[in-house]
Amino acid sequence: MADEVILQDFWSSMFGMRCRIALAEKGVKYEYKEEDLRKKSDLLLQMNPIHKKIPVLVHNGRLVCESLVILQYNDETWPGKCSLLPSDPYQRAQARFCADYVDKKFSDLGRKICTTKGEEQEVAKKELIDSVKLLEGELGDKPFFGGEKLGFVDLAIVPFYTYFLAYETCGNFSIEVECPNFIAWTKRCLEIESVSKSLADPQKVYGFVLHLKKANGTE
Amino acid sequence: MADEVILQDFWSSMFGMRCRIALAEKGVKYEYKEEDLRKKSDLLLQMNPIHKKIPVLVHNGRLVCESLVILQYNDETWPGKCSLLPSDPYQRAQARFCADYVDKKFSDLGRKICTTKGEEQEVAKKELIDSVKLLEGELGDKPFFGGEKLGFVDLAIVPFYTYFLAYETCGNFSIEVECPNFIAWTKRCLEIESVSKSLADPQKVYGFVLHLKKANGTE
Repeated sequence: MADEVILQDFWSSMFGMRCRIALAEKGVKYEYKEEDLRKKSDLLLQMNPIHKKIPVLVHNGRLVCESLVILQYNDETWPGKCSLLPSDPYQRAQARFCADYVDKKFSDLGRKICTTKGEEQEVAKKELIDSVKLLEGELGDKPFFGGEKLGFVDLAIVPFYTYFLAYETCGNFSIEVECPNFIAWTKRCLEIESVSKSLADPQKVYGFVLHLKKANGTE
Repeated sequence: MADEVILQDFWSSMFGMRCRIALAEKGVKYEYKEEDLRKKSDLLLQMNPIHKKIPVLVHNGRLVCESLVILQYNDETWPGKCSLLPSDPYQRAQARFCADYVDKKFSDLGRKICTTKGEEQEVAKKELIDSVKLLEGELGDKPFFGGEKLGFVDLAIVPFYTYFLAYETCGNFSIEVECPNFIAWTKRCLEIESVSKSLADPQKVYGFVLHLKKANGTE
């Protein structure tokens, strides 16, 4: 029986984009289902009753939630095609730590940059830049966080690139000026088809952020 | 060369307790180093410069941070002795999801129960009970979350038991009355030496919570 794979997702979700790249890297054919986040479908509520959040991967009727869990599930279910996590336990631990770090930092800081002003916004901008510089240190001279090729950490981070235009415009700063090596890395990632095909358009994401700011009264 | 394993930890850390149980389950001999959290040592700041948090596992000079990352590192570095994560990719994903869920819920809710009053405390109590009930559903009729034996999810959850006396006394409620199957599970865990030897004394933890409440002016 052929695998039935469905990704319940939302176009601008950086967490969903991670899964789209992973599935593309693994060459897994899947059905993409767009969720209307303003009116969460019964299907989503059934699929992820705990967090009620996309992305949800449905593989032969079995549900996997949380993007980093989905990435590891992909890697363990379709191991032959390419490996997202390295094989060495220490390097695996470093990769998991790094992805977890990004999850704990980037979304919250980005949201603050887009929804606050003055001192609070400045603090968030500084913290985001510091975090990106720390990642630049981790990248070092390697072309990718995964070494010579795209890996788990690359997939965890690169979707945030689609939000950088929104962060920079709302916060009036340039990540490229502060962190040129990091932006050079994103450009290398974007040359890879699995990435370029899976990421949303930054202009469209910026429009969506402006729409949310208006809806939430944080213009 | 024999492995040199050090655990930089703090006695009342539920995250540290996870690592202590894992090392005991794997039969790994290690040096325990107690950190003074009021005056973080240069060693800790060198070891975990990013989050500046214990626990940190040092294995032959290489550092691994974040308790769930450490648990997986343990499992992959010493695979022969016993397996914390199941071998099936779907069950592994479920275990990772469950441990992540506990991390996103328990600490914050516990802190709210111990440091707030009135409506805010009531909401946190209800949410904690709902979360524990959800875990009871996940446990079902199995003796352990890992099935017939202790596994990754058991290790992720059971250290919180040492804080339940503090939560219950500060919040004036009983988790056992609401969730008897969950408490029966904690008792089964405590019969296992790797657990009972690694967990702090709930009375001592309660004393520590009272001390923190006084120091922070949230009595």
